[in-house]
Amino acid sequence: MTGTIEFYFDFSSPYGYFASVQIDDLAARFGRTAKWKPIMIGAAFKQSGNRPLLEQPIKGDYSRHDWQRLARLLDVPWVLPEPFPIATLAAARAFWWLTASDVALARRFAQAAFHAYFADGRDISAAGTVAEVAANLDIDAAALLAAVQDPAIKARLKFETDDAIKLGVFGSPFVFVDGEGFWGADRLWMVKRWLESGGW
Amino acid sequence: MTGTIEFYFDFSSPYGYFASVQIDDLAARFGRTAKWKPIMIGAAFKQSGNRPLLEQPIKGDYSRHDWQRLARLLDVPWVLPEPFPIATLAAARAFWWLTASDVALARRFAQAAFHAYFADGRDISAAGTVAEVAANLDIDAAALLAAVQDPAIKARLKFETDDAIKLGVFGSPFVFVDGEGFWGADRLWMVKRWLESGGW
Repeated sequence: MTGTIEFYFDFSSPYGYFASVQIDDLAARFGRTAKWKPIMIGAAFKQSGNRPLLEQPIKGDYSRHDWQRLARLLDVPWVLPEPFPIATLAAARAFWWLTASDVALARRFAQAAFHAYFADGRDISAAGTVAEVAANLDIDAAALLAAVQDPAIKARLKFETDDAIKLGVFGSPFVFVDGEGFWGADRLWMVKRWLESGGW
Repeated sequence: MTGTIEFYFDFSSPYGYFASVQIDDLAARFGRTAKWKPIMIGAAFKQSGNRPLLEQPIKGDYSRHDWQRLARLLDVPWVLPEPFPIATLAAARAFWWLTASDVALARRFAQAAFHAYFADGRDISAAGTVAEVAANLDIDAAALLAAVQDPAIKARLKFETDDAIKLGVFGSPFVFVDGEGFWGADRLWMVKRWLESGGW
């Protein structure tokens, strides 16, 4: 099987971050490639009636604890950033701008943006911070700041988000393998089973 | 490690059913015993603001599909019963009545009740149906019907439900290992890791 794995996420999603540090290795083990697809999960929440985790009584406290233990289990750095959650339009648009010319660079940028937010606690809702993160990867900061205001790039993010919602995406992360959707970082074991067996 | 694993569930929960067919084997592999604890998850939903899955747009469709594929993966019988979800007071009270005198029989009853609802599609909200399911295990039907109206048994279920909510239970299934809570049938891999490693 050689189809790409589609990896939908929001840069403000802790579980998206935890999946992001696993998805490429998982895909590679089965000769696949993961196609990263940042979206605005808030738009999906509007359709599904879902709400940010920390706004939910009891479940919010569970999530806070769960993120800490998942970070320890995966051995990745973790802070609960302040503010959280945030609108990640700038980072997502920058990704879609970059991916048009260099998919690998776009992925490295995405990893760096996740790291900036969830490891360093930097507020990546600000386009200026996103540009700084990108500059560390030798991405032109001025070009990025122009790109995130470019109507075509804005439209691309909106298109990708709407498309994800049409496919049934209602949370982050959401992974598609051979058209089969799996919601959540805690479902990667099931993605693995699907890849191993070619479905069941 | 010899502490029991606490397995909270609602008899109307598909993911509770899918966990129920795995939890005893999982516990036994690590020399543990799972203590089954049926509760009224609706009471927890009132605290957490959670809602039944099929009432949620998009997520409801995902769940429907997910239950089918989980049943195939686990190789267990599955129907989406009608009506669904239901109030499972009678089954839960019968369980707590039985467990006072025979924990093993109570567990076999719980397995049979889950099977009646999710494999045979029988409406176990009716106490008469619960009594029929129990009668197949040589449980006295008349005694069961009296027990599910017994104020002390009613109080026991309420106590267990309130206690679960105090512990942070907001969904079904919910598993505690050494005081560490894990929500969801899709988190049993994490329960296993915890049992293997003694925590992390």
